[in-house]
Amino acid sequence: MMTVRAAEPLDVATLAETDRATLAEYLQRLGDDRLVLGHRLSEWCGHAPILEEDIALGNIALDLIGQATRALELAGETEGKGRNADRLAYFREAVEYRNLQLVELPRGDFGYTIARQFFFDAFSVHFLDALRQSSYAELAAWATKALKEDRYHLRHSSEWMLKLGDGTAESHARVQRSVNELWRFTGEMFMDDAVDERMAQLGIVPKPSTLRAQWNTVVTDVLSRAQLERPTHEFFAHGGRTGRHTESLGHMLAEMQIVARSHPDATEW
Amino acid sequence: MMTVRAAEPLDVATLAETDRATLAEYLQRLGDDRLVLGHRLSEWCGHAPILEEDIALGNIALDLIGQATRALELAGETEGKGRNADRLAYFREAVEYRNLQLVELPRGDFGYTIARQFFFDAFSVHFLDALRQSSYAELAAWATKALKEDRYHLRHSSEWMLKLGDGTAESHARVQRSVNELWRFTGEMFMDDAVDERMAQLGIVPKPSTLRAQWNTVVTDVLSRAQLERPTHEFFAHGGRTGRHTESLGHMLAEMQIVARSHPDATEW
Repeated sequence: MMTVRAAEPLDVATLAETDRATLAEYLQRLGDDRLVLGHRLSEWCGHAPILEEDIALGNIALDLIGQATRALELAGETEGKGRNADRLAYFREAVEYRNLQLVELPRGDFGYTIARQFFFDAFSVHFLDALRQSSYAELAAWATKALKEDRYHLRHSSEWMLKLGDGTAESHARVQRSVNELWRFTGEMFMDDAVDERMAQLGIVPKPSTLRAQWNTVVTDVLSRAQLERPTHEFFAHGGRTGRHTESLGHMLAEMQIVARSHPDATEW
Repeated sequence: MMTVRAAEPLDVATLAETDRATLAEYLQRLGDDRLVLGHRLSEWCGHAPILEEDIALGNIALDLIGQATRALELAGETEGKGRNADRLAYFREAVEYRNLQLVELPRGDFGYTIARQFFFDAFSVHFLDALRQSSYAELAAWATKALKEDRYHLRHSSEWMLKLGDGTAESHARVQRSVNELWRFTGEMFMDDAVDERMAQLGIVPKPSTLRAQWNTVVTDVLSRAQLERPTHEFFAHGGRTGRHTESLGHMLAEMQIVARSHPDATEW
C-alpha cells in the first residue's frame, strides 16, 4: 500500500532539519486525531444509553488516548525542543492542533458519535495497515499495536451502524441525518499536502489519497447493508491539518487543559 | 475470613422469599458502590493532569462499572421482577440507590479522588478476598475476577498517596485536607446491619465489621509512610445503605440517567 518505500530503515537522527520538523508535524497529526477523538468519546463515560456501551465507548476512548500519547511522545522526541506528550497535549492552543475537523465536532447524539467513529475507523484501519511497512521503525511498531485496537473499533462502529440504520424508523432517520451532516468532514482525511508528500517520499507513511478507494469500499458496503444512503456531494471542509478548526475545538481544549494548566508541575503533585 | 460459612453451596432457587429479597438488596449494594464510584472516576476522563493518569483513572472506572454491571445483573435475576442491570442503573431514583455515601461525594481535586479511592480500595481488596469463599458460586466467581482488578487499583491509589503525601508542601497539605474531610465517610463501610447479618448467616458474605482490622492496618501503614496524619475521631456518617444520600448523588444520577431515560428502548436504537 505504501506508494513510495525507502529501501533502508529510517534513522531519524540523520534526517535533514527540515525533514525532522516535517516528521514532527506529521506525528502531531497522528496524535491529535486520536487525542481529540478519544476525548470526544470519553465524554460518553457515564452517559451512554446502556452500561455495555458505557464500557465499550470508554475502552475505545482509552485506546485512542493511549495511541495519541505514544504518537505525541514520538513527536516531542523528533521535534527536539524538550516538549513531552503531556506538554504537547495540554499546552498547545487550538491553532497549534493538527487534527482533522471531523474528530473535533461535538459528540452529538449516540448515532452521531457512532457515524463519526465509523468514518474514522474505516480510514484508520487501512491507514494503519499500510503504516506497518513504514521505514520509521517506531512508527511501524505503533501502527501494529494500534491496528489491533482499531480493527475492534471498526467492528464495533460498523455493527452499530447496521443496528441503527436497519433499526427503528426513528433510529434510521437520526443516523441518516448524522451521516449527511458528517459527510462534508470526511474528505479531509484523503487530502494530500506537502507534509504528506514528503513523508511518502521518505517511505514513512502512505499518502492519504491512496487510501480513499479502500475507505469507499467499506463505507459503501456498510451504509448499503444498513439501508442508509451514501451522500454523493464532494464539497469537503478542510483546514484542520494547518490549525484552522471549528470553534468547538477551543471549547473542548479549554476543558481538557484546565487541570494541567492549573498545576503545571502536576507530575510532582 | 468468612465468619459464618454454609457447609453446602447455595442454591438461590431454594432460598425463602425474604432471603431472596435480602440477597437482591445486598447485590444492589455491591453494584451501586461500584457504579457510583466508577462514574465519579470517569468524570476525570479527559481532565486528568497528565495523559497517563487520564488512562489509568479511566481504566479503573471501567473496571468498576464492569463489576457493577455484573452485580446488578445478579441483583435483577435474584429479585425476579424483570429488571436487568440497565434498568437498575438508569431507572432507580437516588433513594433507591444502596451505595456508601463515601463513593458518591463529588470528585473534588485529584488528591481528593485518590484519597477516596484509596480508602475504598483498601476495604474492597479484603472484602473481595473473603468473598471468594462465598457459598453463592456466582458471587464467588465475581469476587475472584474483581479482586484481580482491585489489587491493581489499590496499588495505584497507594502509590499516589505516597507521592502526594510525601511530595511538595502544597500536595501534602491538599491530600491531608482530603483525608480529614473523607474520614467521617469511612465508617459506613464497616457497619453491619440486618442485611449483612443474614447474608453472613447464609455464608454468602463476610460481615463488614470483620474487615475493619485489616483495613486499619493498610490505612495506618500507607498514611504513615506518606507522612500523613490518620484522623482519630469516630463520628461516622451513614445512611447510604438504606437510601439516605447526600444531595450530590441526585445530581450525579440526573446526568448519568438522562440519555437512557430519554431513550427507554435504547437497545433498539
